[in-house]
Amino acid sequence: MANPVGVPPGSPRRRDAQATRRRLLEAAADLFAERGYDAATVRDIADRAGANQALLFRYFGSKSGLLTEVMAHSGQEQLRTTPPEKLFETTLRGMLTHHGKEPHDRSLAVYLRSVGGADDAAETVKVLGEQYADVLATLSGAEDAALRADLAMAWLLGIGMMRVVVGREPLASAHPDEVCELVLGLLRRLLEGVPAPEGAVPPESGER
Amino acid sequence: MANPVGVPPGSPRRRDAQATRRRLLEAAADLFAERGYDAATVRDIADRAGANQALLFRYFGSKSGLLTEVMAHSGQEQLRTTPPEKLFETTLRGMLTHHGKEPHDRSLAVYLRSVGGADDAAETVKVLGEQYADVLATLSGAEDAALRADLAMAWLLGIGMMRVVVGREPLASAHPDEVCELVLGLLRRLLEGVPAPEGAVPPESGER
Repeated sequence: MANPVGVPPGSPRRRDAQATRRRLLEAAADLFAERGYDAATVRDIADRAGANQALLFRYFGSKSGLLTEVMAHSGQEQLRTTPPEKLFETTLRGMLTHHGKEPHDRSLAVYLRSVGGADDAAETVKVLGEQYADVLATLSGAEDAALRADLAMAWLLGIGMMRVVVGREPLASAHPDEVCELVLGLLRRLLEGVPAPEGAVPPESGER
Repeated sequence: MANPVGVPPGSPRRRDAQATRRRLLEAAADLFAERGYDAATVRDIADRAGANQALLFRYFGSKSGLLTEVMAHSGQEQLRTTPPEKLFETTLRGMLTHHGKEPHDRSLAVYLRSVGGADDAAETVKVLGEQYADVLATLSGAEDAALRADLAMAWLLGIGMMRVVVGREPLASAHPDEVCELVLGLLRRLLEGVPAPEGAVPPESGER
């Protein structure tokens, strides 16, 4: 078995380990999406990756550690590929489209549930949230841009919790467009920070 | 031992049971506030209430069941005593004043953490949230008042999670007034629902 610890970077064994790690992540992402987090077993993931279960545990610690990395990876990908001014809307729409009702949405629910925890998943949520908030803060010219970005993140998190985890109605079944229309206009105001001169403030509706 | 099951309402034994239950709730509220949830033992709570530990478990199932009832009770109290138009601000301020750093604030953190769970505490959070949202919805004249109220609740929940549970900075250390100023103006717009005519929209700052 390839052991990434103590193996010099760039060596064939290290490259093998990284390839195996990547295959495990991809297999996990696929199986979580296909079957949901609970139904995707560690054995299935290792089998699909053509890797040993022991390696899975060595690299990721546990199945939830694997989920954390899968989610962190997709979060990083979204951060990398989304223009800052579209980041909030893209993330919100992603959350709204994943109702948490279909099996493949379970991972978002598991992820949101983990926010309150004290484990690695919670730490990843925190780090990812910080990176998102840093990008959102660049959109605001206000002195308290970082605080405004935190409050925007808080809303995103709260909407995810209420919709996906708590299943609160009518929010849980509301059309994504309807939610976006209500949230995005206010969010822009929150991030803009500078109070608009009277008469120059467009109404909320019809802004999009 | 008084047994509330199978005892007719209004009988002395039933009244004893209700009094014991109330004393246990009060003792738990006091001890959670003084020492924090973890440090307050079931034994201490029972001792302070002058009741038997077995009764505590019979009435509340577990220590977390007791916390759920303590929080639900204070939530109900707040709903009962706060005018609807002050409810959001009062709840937000309560959340912002409880930093989660002092031991007596632990119960808020425990409560917020439980939102994602599948136990009695999560159910209580859900019911309480519904009652709050129902009151908030009465403040909105919009057709989609219930959805707007849900989004307001989501923001409240998200702010609580980010501040108390995740400890996200600068939100976690921000002055309550500063947070309220940013949130309350936008919240009013969210609940008002009707797009204000152009020129009649006051700027965010200085609204309060």
